[in-house]
Amino acid sequence: MSYDILQRLTETIASRKGAAAETSYVAKLFSKGEDAILKKVGEEATEVLLAAKGGDKAHLVYETADLWFHCLVLLEQHDLSINDVLIELARREGVSGITEKMGRKND
Amino acid sequence: MSYDILQRLTETIASRKGAAAETSYVAKLFSKGEDAILKKVGEEATEVLLAAKGGDKAHLVYETADLWFHCLVLLEQHDLSINDVLIELARREGVSGITEKMGRKND
Amino acid sequence: MSYDILQRLTETIASRKGAAAETSYVAKLFSKGEDAILKKVGEEATEVLLAAKGGDKAHLVYETADLWFHCLVLLEQHDLSINDVLIELARREGVSGITEKMGRKND
Amino acid sequence: MSYDILQRLTETIASRKGAAAETSYVAKLFSKGEDAILKKVGEEATEVLLAAKGGDKAHLVYETADLWFHCLVLLEQHDLSINDVLIELARREGVSGITEKMGRKND
Repeated sequence: MSYDILQRLTETIASRKGAAAETSYVAKLFSKGEDAILKKVGEEATEVLLAAKGGDKAHLVYETADLWFHCLVLLEQHDLSINDVLIELARREGVSGITEKMGRKND
Repeated sequence: MSYDILQRLTETIASRKGAAAETSYVAKLFSKGEDAILKKVGEEATEVLLAAKGGDKAHLVYETADLWFHCLVLLEQHDLSINDVLIELARREGVSGITEKMGRKND
Repeated sequence: MSYDILQRLTETIASRKGAAAETSYVAKLFSKGEDAILKKVGEEATEVLLAAKGGDKAHLVYETADLWFHCLVLLEQHDLSINDVLIELARREGVSGITEKMGRKND
Repeated sequence: MSYDILQRLTETIASRKGAAAETSYVAKLFSKGEDAILKKVGEEATEVLLAAKGGDKAHLVYETADLWFHCLVLLEQHDLSINDVLIELARREGVSGITEKMGRKND
């Protein structure tokens, strides 16, 4: 299922790029430019934090979905897609296991 | 591919929960508690913004992967997973198309 | 001048606490509760980053003013004030010089 | 007191600009460039949110001091200072009262 939904979302978002601003939320966001998209990413990250601290699981899922959705819009703005991120995650896993790799970077 | 990598990451992260802190980066993060995870989510969101403004596509992919990875850790901390987020995204699409739905929420 | 304006702002903000939501922006924010204030702090921090990257000095000043203003509201929400923050900054300076102190914490 | 401490901090920070990186925390931050400063602003904003949700007043004061301190560094990076922010806050107050002004912008 995940492949389907992330792929379909990516295609839908791509189809909004360049469409008239009034035709959809995403078309409007693209028309406002990158800073508008980045403001949404910052806002949604804040909402994820507050939802986590609030302890309501459904709220946390909702806000995480919002954050990921706006990341997909940001990727499309840069002519990138979910696949680039998944390839990067797979690459790390391939190197030596994601958790060890992350550990070397962050410790 | 997406299903595989996101699913494998989810399983790897889940297996780190409760493991001794010194065994991996993720085990250490879980041992520090939720605020440590949330600090990483906030940091990585900031890095995504800076990478986007910097205009280096590979850097943006890298930081988005970091942000999503830490979101997976946060979900696991709350006994949730990527599947809950994907179901939420699919639900929105099912209602009336994701972009229209988002539009009603945000406009 | 700084003492005057920060002090006057603090007093104005304090006077809005508990006032009817429709009487002012700050009264409305207090009435919505802490998460609404924190969302504004997160949003304004994002705006500061974007303004800095945009390179427009007047914009950066504007957004920094917004961020500090909402920090004052947050402090008041916790029955704290600008003076507590200034005392903390002065305390650090007194210990051994602020920059050295910060260095020990962050390096 | 506020004028003294904010003014002294501003002068100290300005004196670190261009100094050898190893001489102080702030000199090191300047030497790393703007993104390093912005990462700190993003991190400290996240810490303010977490401290507020944690409910420990002393912690909130501490993190707010950290956030403001790094805003002062950011302003200096752009050849601006606390005075520019205070003038902006005073200007808003002069127009028609800060809370009303903010209300018009944000409502």
